[in-house]
Amino acid sequence: MARLVLKFGGTSVADIDRIRNVAEHVKREVVAGNEVAVILSAMAGKTNELVEWCSQAAALHDAREYDSVVASGEIVTVGLLAIMLQSMGVNARSWQGWQIPIRTDGNHGAARIKDIDGSRLVERLQAGQVAVVAGFQGIGPDNRVTTLGRGGSDTSAVAVAAAVNADRCDIYTDVDGVYTSDPRIVEHAHRLDKISYEEMLEMASLGAKVLQTRSVELAMVRRVPVLVRSSFDDPHAPQPALDGPFGGPGTLVCDEDEIVEQHIVSGIAYSKDEAKITLRRVADKPGVAATVFGPLAAANINVDMIVQNVSEDGSTTDLTFTVPVADFERAEKVIEEARDKIGYADMAGSTGVVKVSVIGIGMRSHAGVAAQMFSALAERGINIQLISTSEIKISVLIDAAYTELAVRTLHSVYGLDR
Amino acid sequence: MARLVLKFGGTSVADIDRIRNVAEHVKREVVAGNEVAVILSAMAGKTNELVEWCSQAAALHDAREYDSVVASGEIVTVGLLAIMLQSMGVNARSWQGWQIPIRTDGNHGAARIKDIDGSRLVERLQAGQVAVVAGFQGIGPDNRVTTLGRGGSDTSAVAVAAAVNADRCDIYTDVDGVYTSDPRIVEHAHRLDKISYEEMLEMASLGAKVLQTRSVELAMVRRVPVLVRSSFDDPHAPQPALDGPFGGPGTLVCDEDEIVEQHIVSGIAYSKDEAKITLRRVADKPGVAATVFGPLAAANINVDMIVQNVSEDGSTTDLTFTVPVADFERAEKVIEEARDKIGYADMAGSTGVVKVSVIGIGMRSHAGVAAQMFSALAERGINIQLISTSEIKISVLIDAAYTELAVRTLHSVYGLDR
Repeated sequence: MARLVLKFGGTSVADIDRIRNVAEHVKREVVAGNEVAVILSAMAGKTNELVEWCSQAAALHDAREYDSVVASGEIVTVGLLAIMLQSMGVNARSWQGWQIPIRTDGNHGAARIKDIDGSRLVERLQAGQVAVVAGFQGIGPDNRVTTLGRGGSDTSAVAVAAAVNADRCDIYTDVDGVYTSDPRIVEHAHRLDKISYEEMLEMASLGAKVLQTRSVELAMVRRVPVLVRSSFDDPHAPQPALDGPFGGPGTLVCDEDEIVEQHIVSGIAYSKDEAKITLRRVADKPGVAATVFGPLAAANINVDMIVQNVSEDGSTTDLTFTVPVADFERAEKVIEEARDKIGYADMAGSTGVVKVSVIGIGMRSHAGVAAQMFSALAERGINIQLISTSEIKISVLIDAAYTELAVRTLHSVYGLDR
Repeated sequence: MARLVLKFGGTSVADIDRIRNVAEHVKREVVAGNEVAVILSAMAGKTNELVEWCSQAAALHDAREYDSVVASGEIVTVGLLAIMLQSMGVNARSWQGWQIPIRTDGNHGAARIKDIDGSRLVERLQAGQVAVVAGFQGIGPDNRVTTLGRGGSDTSAVAVAAAVNADRCDIYTDVDGVYTSDPRIVEHAHRLDKISYEEMLEMASLGAKVLQTRSVELAMVRRVPVLVRSSFDDPHAPQPALDGPFGGPGTLVCDEDEIVEQHIVSGIAYSKDEAKITLRRVADKPGVAATVFGPLAAANINVDMIVQNVSEDGSTTDLTFTVPVADFERAEKVIEEARDKIGYADMAGSTGVVKVSVIGIGMRSHAGVAAQMFSALAERGINIQLISTSEIKISVLIDAAYTELAVRTLHSVYGLDR
């Protein structure tokens, strides 16, 4: 017996038949003797419809009203699932954010969960009642409805799991787990049975959009094991054990200590959402970086990779950095406006680039991972434009035309092909 | 300057354009210097869709879950109107039932409002903020969402008006007021400028479906003047004074003391929702009525008119009563099952009947109203099957084929033709 939190997204509750499928998954876990809380999104498309209505009502709208409107979609799905579970003989009730309550800060539209009082939920769970909780929503300091931002239901699920001290949080999604790379371009990519929080964080923020980054951060901090699995699985099929010989029903995101067979590299990720800006002959003196990145930060533009070369003549240097593609033109304008202050000879930008990353917790204790990457790419004639590294990740910026070649090559080089 | 509550139904908020029209009405009242609270229904059709989903989820469903789901439609419209008002420069915010709170009993699906704390609303109204309140919903003793039953938004509006001590409650609807009779069958029917609560109650319960009966009862008890007017009026047109020479913009439902020019009869109503059941040779002894109407009440069948003739032979009598058409067959079955207990010779029922009513507060002080009715109908050869009277109403049950003739005749006889 375990205490489980199950989360289902919009496509999993898109209509009555899909909700019935969700109910079958829930019932299976209840029949198996588990205590179950369920977190749901709104029906697929419903939140977009509500957002569109808000935009039609006024181009600029009060975020508090927006939140109240768009959070209504989850109220519908949780009520319907509770009704359906009851009709299947499963004791269940729905919970809106304010009823628990799920307390957030007042940052409407992208609120952060401050505190969840899990006591009432635990009481009901122990009494054998399934708690069906509206995801994506909470209640702010002024008693008004808040939303956590798109994809916030993953975060709701992990936060509720932490609040009720759940043994595991199962995220049902439209893929059956986390892969070593994108199966659409790497034929030999395979599902990982387990991945560490740290690796998953790098994967998520690099565009492997299985889990919302914030939910992974929260799971890591609160040590909630998260199982990513498919909602399209037959709910009546026998459930493989998580540590079974044929692999579990998905990918378990967990503490690295729980991963017995560690690979040096767990996955190869890539992100096409990159644009590169180079400033030539910037004055090589203290404080110049602040004159460049200060205005970008003020414009809310997220700078990712930054490389500053060693000065050749001792007085000027070249500075290169990347920004999201959507912010590219705006970033160029911001830099242009700050030109006098920064002082540079000229600016060059391009968008035809991709960031390819090698991710693995094993890197910490293994030297030579980076060298292997650089030589493998060099052998294929792929030029590296920028390099950035973290403890468990090496990222390179390359010409976008080489994306597939680079990802496939690295997947093979690090022994991930199966 | 006045404090006003405005209520708009589902067709008035059916889409963004219609909501914009509502916003124009609201803005006009604000610009005129009034304090304004607005009560809204869900978009037309939305509540039905939610009800349908609940039915698809399970034939029998938990009323608490049902309430939570169907109350979500109002959350959307109040948020959208608040956004739109703000974009028009009108300070506004939305209120869900639990935020005010609107406290109800725990009778889910048909809850009654127990108490509305108007203090926070009044504070905001005085500060010049429009309160946009979700109609139809409240919060029960256990902190769960309740609904007031279909048409409950009228009741929400009157209850909020009473709670904030409003000067008037304006119900915007798809007709422009209360008529002396149904204009579809009486060509010379005309709109009343004013009508008393008591008369309106009789009108409403007799099938003139302009206002929900409960909302009129509440308005009468709390002495809230209610103005019934059309939401299709041009919101930018000059507003006629309520007591102006050309009549107000609708019909004011108010205390009879405020109606200067009282007519003896204010209107002629009819109801086709009647079925008649006659029991012949029922024992004429104390307690027999209870043996008939007890089982009907237990079966939740609403009996309307009841006539018991004086016994001819001193031992048996005939008993006739009416029930709603929808309950006719069920009522016959209930009586059949209680036959031994009641003891009657035979039962006869028919559905081709209509109840026609003459309503007027002036009847109290004028004799001869009933006599005039009976002779007018007799002159037209219309046979009266049953008669029932109240202080301000005389109803007769007649053959349905004579509906139009009877209503037109009485409309003319009592001087209502214009």
